Amino acid sequence: MPYVNVRITPAATREQKAQIIAEITDTLSRVLGKRPDQTHIVIDEVDEQNWGFAGVPTDMYRAGTRE
Amino acid sequence: MPYVNVRITPAATREQKAQIIAEITDTLSRVLGKRPDQTHIVIDEVDEQNWGFAGVPTDMYRAGTRE
Amino acid sequence: MPYVNVRITPAATREQKAQIIAEITDTLSRVLGKRPDQTHIVIDEVDEQNWGFAGVPTDMYRAGTRE
Amino acid sequence: MPYVNVRITPAATREQKAQIIAEITDTLSRVLGKRPDQTHIVIDEVDEQNWGFAGVPTDMYRAGTRE
Amino acid sequence: MPYVNVRITPAATREQKAQIIAEITDTLSRVLGKRPDQTHIVIDEVDEQNWGFAGVPTDMYRAGTRE
Amino acid sequence: MPYVNVRITPAATREQKAQIIAEITDTLSRVLGKRPDQTHIVIDEVDEQNWGFAGVPTDMYRAGTRE
Repeated sequence: MPYVNVRITPAATREQKAQIIAEITDTLSRVLGKRPDQTHIVIDEVDEQNWGFAGVPTDMYRAGTRE
Repeated sequence: MPYVNVRITPAATREQKAQIIAEITDTLSRVLGKRPDQTHIVIDEVDEQNWGFAGVPTDMYRAGTRE
Repeated sequence: MPYVNVRITPAATREQKAQIIAEITDTLSRVLGKRPDQTHIVIDEVDEQNWGFAGVPTDMYRAGTRE
Repeated sequence: MPYVNVRITPAATREQKAQIIAEITDTLSRVLGKRPDQTHIVIDEVDEQNWGFAGVPTDMYRAGTRE
Repeated sequence: MPYVNVRITPAATREQKAQIIAEITDTLSRVLGKRPDQTHIVIDEVDEQNWGFAGVPTDMYRAGTRE
Repeated sequence: MPYVNVRITPAATREQKAQIIAEITDTLSRVLGKRPDQTHIVIDEVDEQNWGFAGVPTDMYRAGTRE
């Protein structure tokens, strides 16, 4: 009965999100024997000014370096 | 001192959300004796393409079956 | 497809947790029409020294007042 | 390797969020010795009708009292 | 800058958890181009009496059916 | 009405946790004007084998480098 929460920044495309859902569901099914119809995966796309990294919002961090 | 996070898809109406908040607060008060003024309930309404179930985004899942 | 996370301190009994699960599942079924077999509820019992309220850990808070 | 999730209502300004990120990162660095470049802080700004307190949505609660 | 939270019941072995971490990190690297050294994955192993499904704790649910 | 979840590995002392609670509550009070008696902070201490970083569990990561 897995629940998975994936939090990312910035947003992903619909196709990328579908692929992430498919692959993580497959991982949990193969490694732990979890039923896909009891596996829920929620993706949260976080605005860059709301994600802090290294002490600053991500957009400020990325303005000074390459991810 | 409960904190409750309710994650649903798709969105609910304002009235439905107020009722969910009232009922869960009442449950925690009756069953555990928790004070309502120390009980916080946060509802996250998740876009269907961000909620994976049975290996696919929920909107694709619902296109092929009935919830 | 709801996922609910209930965080409380201190711990609850097995019977209390079963009742909370039953009642919240019922609320989501009646108010939003959610299927119980797609409703997951996870209860986290948090140690009092790990839950801060009013600027202090809960056990210190409770030593000075009544919840 | 800390991960911090700050959930607030209502929304904050960009400057307020940057300050919160800077101060919490500093706290974890000073108190626990955590490296800022391994510290992630995600701020969720929750709509008032989605945050329940004292049994009602926050906007209804605030209409009857002062926070 | 992904953060992933995997919640499962019952517990997994150390080897299973290491494999889940490796595979999800690989998925996010391939699909979204995320750097592994900015990818954090936290696994929560939840006691069966704390995970409600279909209105009952998971251990009661499993006593009456097969997962 | 803030709720803050701090997830760290490995465990912290009681004194460190009390200081983190005090400082984050102070930050939210000064920066956002939040009332401490409506501010809840929950600290989760995660086992190192359950926290993945750079594709491996943290204890394996730390065996090969310095945090």
